[in-house]
Amino acid sequence: MSAYAALEARFRRLGLLSDAAAMLHWDWATMMPPGGAEARATQLAELSLIRHESLTDPRVCALLDEAETEAEADGDALDDWQRANLKGMRRRWREAAALPSDLVAALSEASSSCEMVWRAARPTNDFAAFAAAFAPLLALVREKAAALAQALDCAPYDALIESYEPGLRSATIDPLFDDLAGFLPEFVGAVREAQGAAGAPAPPLSAPAAAQQALARRLMTALGFDFERGRLDVSLHPFCGGAGGDIRITTRYDEDDALSALMAVLHETGHALYEAGLPEDWRYQPVGQACGMALHESQSLLIEMQACRSRPFTRFLAPLLEEYLGGTGDGMDAEALYRRAIHVEPGFIRVDADEVTYPAHVMLRYRLERALIAGDLVVDGIPGAWADIHDELLGIRPASHADGCLQDIHWSCGELGYFPSYTVGALMAAQFFDAAARDEPALWPAIERGDFAPLLGWLRARVHGLASRHEGPALLERATGRPLGTVVFKTHLQRRYLG
Amino acid sequence: MSAYAALEARFRRLGLLSDAAAMLHWDWATMMPPGGAEARATQLAELSLIRHESLTDPRVCALLDEAETEAEADGDALDDWQRANLKGMRRRWREAAALPSDLVAALSEASSSCEMVWRAARPTNDFAAFAAAFAPLLALVREKAAALAQALDCAPYDALIESYEPGLRSATIDPLFDDLAGFLPEFVGAVREAQGAAGAPAPPLSAPAAAQQALARRLMTALGFDFERGRLDVSLHPFCGGAGGDIRITTRYDEDDALSALMAVLHETGHALYEAGLPEDWRYQPVGQACGMALHESQSLLIEMQACRSRPFTRFLAPLLEEYLGGTGDGMDAEALYRRAIHVEPGFIRVDADEVTYPAHVMLRYRLERALIAGDLVVDGIPGAWADIHDELLGIRPASHADGCLQDIHWSCGELGYFPSYTVGALMAAQFFDAAARDEPALWPAIERGDFAPLLGWLRARVHGLASRHEGPALLERATGRPLGTVVFKTHLQRRYLG
Repeated sequence: MSAYAALEARFRRLGLLSDAAAMLHWDWATMMPPGGAEARATQLAELSLIRHESLTDPRVCALLDEAETEAEADGDALDDWQRANLKGMRRRWREAAALPSDLVAALSEASSSCEMVWRAARPTNDFAAFAAAFAPLLALVREKAAALAQALDCAPYDALIESYEPGLRSATIDPLFDDLAGFLPEFVGAVREAQGAAGAPAPPLSAPAAAQQALARRLMTALGFDFERGRLDVSLHPFCGGAGGDIRITTRYDEDDALSALMAVLHETGHALYEAGLPEDWRYQPVGQACGMALHESQSLLIEMQACRSRPFTRFLAPLLEEYLGGTGDGMDAEALYRRAIHVEPGFIRVDADEVTYPAHVMLRYRLERALIAGDLVVDGIPGAWADIHDELLGIRPASHADGCLQDIHWSCGELGYFPSYTVGALMAAQFFDAAARDEPALWPAIERGDFAPLLGWLRARVHGLASRHEGPALLERATGRPLGTVVFKTHLQRRYLG
Repeated sequence: MSAYAALEARFRRLGLLSDAAAMLHWDWATMMPPGGAEARATQLAELSLIRHESLTDPRVCALLDEAETEAEADGDALDDWQRANLKGMRRRWREAAALPSDLVAALSEASSSCEMVWRAARPTNDFAAFAAAFAPLLALVREKAAALAQALDCAPYDALIESYEPGLRSATIDPLFDDLAGFLPEFVGAVREAQGAAGAPAPPLSAPAAAQQALARRLMTALGFDFERGRLDVSLHPFCGGAGGDIRITTRYDEDDALSALMAVLHETGHALYEAGLPEDWRYQPVGQACGMALHESQSLLIEMQACRSRPFTRFLAPLLEEYLGGTGDGMDAEALYRRAIHVEPGFIRVDADEVTYPAHVMLRYRLERALIAGDLVVDGIPGAWADIHDELLGIRPASHADGCLQDIHWSCGELGYFPSYTVGALMAAQFFDAAARDEPALWPAIERGDFAPLLGWLRARVHGLASRHEGPALLERATGRPLGTVVFKTHLQRRYLG
C-alpha cells in the first residue's frame, strides 16, 4: 500500500468518527434528556480524543512526508483530487499536532458543559451562570489559539479563523468589513426612510407549530431536500447537522410569527443542500468535506436571502401559506409577503436580523472576539461592551442578556473565530447567485414556479460537487469570474431595497 | 499507575465507545431516515473495530497478566469489586482475542445490512429477501461461534450463549426446558379449559396512539422511570437502549389494542429500571454493566408479568385507562382488565404471547438456532422447520413469514444464542419477585396504589446495584436463597391461572 493509500485509510476512520460525533451532537440538541448531558459530554470528549490521538500518531506525519515526497518526485502519482486531499490532510495534521491531547480533551468537556449551562441560562437571562462556565472555557480557547498561532505563524485570532475557513485572515476581513461599515449606516437610513414612506408591512402571521412544520417540509422538498436522506426537527438554535446520507436540520417555531421559522428552515436547507451535494466518492476524506464555514454560509444565504426573499419566491409561497396555515387575511398576498420578507429594522437577535443590518451583528461579535482572545476584554465585561457596540452600530441597546450576549450558541461551544464567516458568506452568496442567474436565464421563472432544479444544478456543478477541491475564495473566483469583494453584494442591496 | 489502574483507563474508553454506539443504534431504530442506513452501518462497524483493536492490543493481555499476578500475590491489592472487574475484563479480552478483526468488521456490516433488509422484508412478508441477507450473516456467526468455542473449550452454540449470559450453557438449559416441556402442554390445556368456562374476556381496547403514549408515560413515571434521564419513543420492535444517565425505551402502538403497547412499555421499563439502577461509580467498567441477558430479562418480566399482570396492578390501572383513553365501556373494570391481562391463548407472535405459552416460542427458536449453528438446518429450511415445531408445541401453524420467522429482530442482527435468556429470565423473575414479596409485606398494597418504591428499593439493593459483581445464577441465589429452577415459576403459574 502506498503512503497516500495508507493515509486515505487513516482519514476514513477519522471521517467516520466525526460523523458519529456529529450524530451524537444532533441528538444532544434535539432529543437528549437533560440527565444525559454529563455522560454525552464524556462520550464526545473521548471520541474527540481518539480522533486527536489517531491524527497525531507519529506514523501519520511520517506517511505525510513520504506521500508528499512521492507526489513531488512523480507528477502522475496522484491526480488533482488526491493532491488536494493530501494538502487537506497535512493541514489537519498541522492543526492537531499543535494541540496537546489534554487540551483537546479539556476543551471538549468544557464546551459541552458550557453549552448545557447556556441552554439553561438563556431562558432565565442568567449571565452570571453563563460567565462562570464560559470563563474557564475561554481560557482554554485562548490557550488553543496561542498554540495554533505558533504552529501556523500567525496571530492567535487568525489561527482560530483559519480553523473555520482555511486561508481567511483578519487582513482580508478588515477591508471588507471597513467598506461595509462605511456603506451600511447611511444605506440603512435610506432604506428605513423609503420603507417607512411605503407604510408599515403586514403584521406577523400566527400559526400553530404543526402547520408551520408541514409547510416547512413542503418548501424543503421543493428546494430539493430529500427526506429519505434527512430530517427536520426542533432545537433551541436552528442548525444543520447529521452526516453523509443523513442530513438533519432543525428550527424553532414561533407561533406568533410563522415567517421566522420558515425563513430559518430555508436557511438551514441551503446548508443541507450543500452537504447533500458533496461528492460521495470522497465522503470521508478531507477533500470531500465542505470547504469552510464562510462558503457553507454562502450556500444558506444564497437560498434564504438571494433566492427566497424575492418577489418570484413570495409569489410561489403566498398560495402555500394559505393552503397550509389557513385564513391569512389582508396583506398576505405575494407583494405584502415580499415587503415583510425584506423589511429592514435594527433589532437585537442576529438570527432574526434582515440582511441589511445583519453585518452589524457580525462586526459586533468580531470586535468582541478579537478583544477576548487578545485579553483586552474579560468575560464580565462582555454585557457592557456588547451594549455599547450594539448602540454604536445599530442605535439601540439590548435590555436583557437573552437579547444580548446570551443569544448565540457559538461561544458556549468554544467557537470563537466563526462569526466573520457569516458576513463573508453573505458577500460570497451575492456573487454566486449573480453568476448563477447570469448563466441560467430560466432560474428566476423556475423559482416562481417552486422549481429549484436550475439553481441546484448550477450549484452542484460549480460549488457542492467540488467540495474542498479548491479553497473557498479560489472556488468563488472560478465559479463567478470575480474575486471576493463587496461590490456585487452592495449592488444586490441597492437593487432590492432602493431599486 | 498499577496494571489494574491502566486497565480501568482502557476499559473506560471501551465503555464510552459502547455507549456512543448504543446511542447510534437507538437513533437507527427510531429516527434515522432510510438513506442513512449505509453510512450508519459503516460508522458502527468502525466503532466496533476500534473497540476490538483496543481490546486485543497486546498491551491489554500483558496488563491482565500483570494485574492478576499482583492480585494473587497481594490479597489486599484489590477489593471485591475490583477483583470481579478484573475477572470481567479477562472474560471480555478472551472473547475478543478469539475473533480476528476482519471477522468482527464483517459481522458488524453484515448484521447492519441484514437488519435493514429485515425491516423492509417483514411488512412485505418477503422471506427470500431476508434469506439472501441472512445466509451470509449466518455463515459469519457460525465462524464466530467456532472461533469462540475453541477459545472457551466448549460447543459452538454454548459459546454464543456464553456471550449473552456468562456461565449459562445448554447443559443447564436443557433440564429446565425439558421440565417445562413436560409441564406446560397439559397446564395450557387446563388453563384454556378453566378460562373458556369463565367466558370470553373483554374485547381489546381501541385508543389513539397519542393517548396510549400519554398513559404509557404516566405508568413509567409510577414505576420509577425518570424522564429527565430517559425517553420513550416508537420503533418497529420494542427495545431498551441508550446508555448511562439516558435510558431510552421504545414501543409500537396498536390502535386496536391499547393493552399490547402498554404491556410492552411496562416490560421495557423493567429493563430501563435495571439499567438506571446500575452503580454510577462503575459505569464504564465490566463489573458495572448488566449481569447478562437472562438476568436483564428477569427484570423486565418481573415488572410486566409478575407485578403488572396482577389484580393489584389492574386495580391501579383501571381508572387511569378511563382517564387517559376515554369512554371504556363494559368489561374495562379492574377484574375484566385482569382477566384480559392473564388471558392464555396460543398465538404466533412471541412478543404478544402470554407468560404460559411464551416458553414454547423460546424453545422453538432454541431448537432452530442449535440446528442452524450445528449446520443441521439451512436458511431456506427455516420456514418449514418453524411451522412444524410451532405446530408441535402450540398446535397451530403460521400462515405467513411475518407471523413466523420474520417476526423477530434478533437473527437479522446476528444475535443467535440470545433466545434462551427469555425463558431463563422468566424463571429468575418468578424467584426474585417471590423473594421480594416475602421480604417486603407492603409490596402488594403499594402496587395497588401505583407505588413501586418498595419493589424498586428491594431490586436496587439486591439486584440492580450489584451489576456484575456476581454471575447471574449466583446473584439469584444470594438474593432469593434458592438456586435457578422451575419450581417457583410453576407455583406462580398454578396460583395465578388455576388458583
